[in-house]
Amino acid sequence: MLNIGVLVSGRGSNLQAIIDGIEKGRIDARIKLVISDNPDAFAIERCKNHNIPYRIVERRNFPSKVAFEEEMANLLREENVELVVLAGFMRILSKSFLRHFPDRVINIHPSLIPAFQGLHAQRQAVEFGAKFSGCTVHIVDESVDGGPVIVQAVVPLLPEDTEESLSERILKFEHRVLPQTVQWFAEGRVKVEGRKVLVEGAKYGTLPVNPELEKF
Amino acid sequence: MLNIGVLVSGRGSNLQAIIDGIEKGRIDARIKLVISDNPDAFAIERCKNHNIPYRIVERRNFPSKVAFEEEMANLLREENVELVVLAGFMRILSKSFLRHFPDRVINIHPSLIPAFQGLHAQRQAVEFGAKFSGCTVHIVDESVDGGPVIVQAVVPLLPEDTEESLSERILKFEHRVLPQTVQWFAEGRVKVEGRKVLVEGAKYGTLPVNPELEKF
Repeated sequence: MLNIGVLVSGRGSNLQAIIDGIEKGRIDARIKLVISDNPDAFAIERCKNHNIPYRIVERRNFPSKVAFEEEMANLLREENVELVVLAGFMRILSKSFLRHFPDRVINIHPSLIPAFQGLHAQRQAVEFGAKFSGCTVHIVDESVDGGPVIVQAVVPLLPEDTEESLSERILKFEHRVLPQTVQWFAEGRVKVEGRKVLVEGAKYGTLPVNPELEKF
Repeated sequence: MLNIGVLVSGRGSNLQAIIDGIEKGRIDARIKLVISDNPDAFAIERCKNHNIPYRIVERRNFPSKVAFEEEMANLLREENVELVVLAGFMRILSKSFLRHFPDRVINIHPSLIPAFQGLHAQRQAVEFGAKFSGCTVHIVDESVDGGPVIVQAVVPLLPEDTEESLSERILKFEHRVLPQTVQWFAEGRVKVEGRKVLVEGAKYGTLPVNPELEKF
């Protein structure tokens, strides 16, 4: 069983997808701790509903970003967390946090990076007039939404799409690729070599979406 | 019949795809003129083989970029060219050229823009470790590979891919999307509204590649 920690700031729908995957027996992991930097995050309700330990760690209660990040890292390390999942966590983590979990902090971003990095990725895609977008799970490094890519899912963008309708279409795939990625880590199949990430035994190379999504 | 001009700098495989589409009766257009800025471009041989008028216009023979571009624009206008297709043309066109053909200069780029714009797009994709790339036909504006998107095709990127193998996979789709786009213009179905391009009557919204590729 893989010990995971999840960092959230908002409604936590991707946290819910992981909870569901675990409860259905598709993910061989346990959520040792959820940390929210926002005391009002709906994600906290999800923790209560599923008896998952959570802590609220607010940036404003620390004198520096480093102190804030050290507190989070210490809480996660005390729980022997092996993989940290950012699920709608709205802060950029610095090296002082990442060094505790080398290549073991992952994030989900609602675009095919390097396209539409940063905030409001779906709105960016609609305004650009792209014909496809999607979502990406990547290793977190010090870039913003730019770390090594583990998996991407492609979705079409329709002429009538709005930020909302595209977000909804992408979210369905976020709820597949993120749990799948956690399970790959649980199975010890994720190999990171520089910018290249290989999932051992995954089926690469066909569309739509992802042949490598085996269970989700 | 749509009168088109094609600008080339190299081997001209996308020019060949257009020639083939016309000869097979899938494109209702005639190539009125091919302009090469490179006297050694293999594309010129293709023109000779298919009795297509061509001109060599070298930048070094003109005192300024504007004068060079004005010469090309004049040659194209003399032939009543309605659509200018950049098919591996390796220069950035300025407003002085584009104003002669508003929203009627198109380019093909071997990535899903805005990802991997500029030179060596396939190499950029391999080095980034992307899981998908593709190609884009777009309206040319003064940005580099950034104008309004007409059509995109997605291809998977495999773990063993090199710049060469990815380029080959993408090229097969370049040879479909570019002729298809020319035919859409011939049919008068391309509507440009700011950054949004709509192909009237095209089927949007499914993968793989492109439901809207009807004939290619």
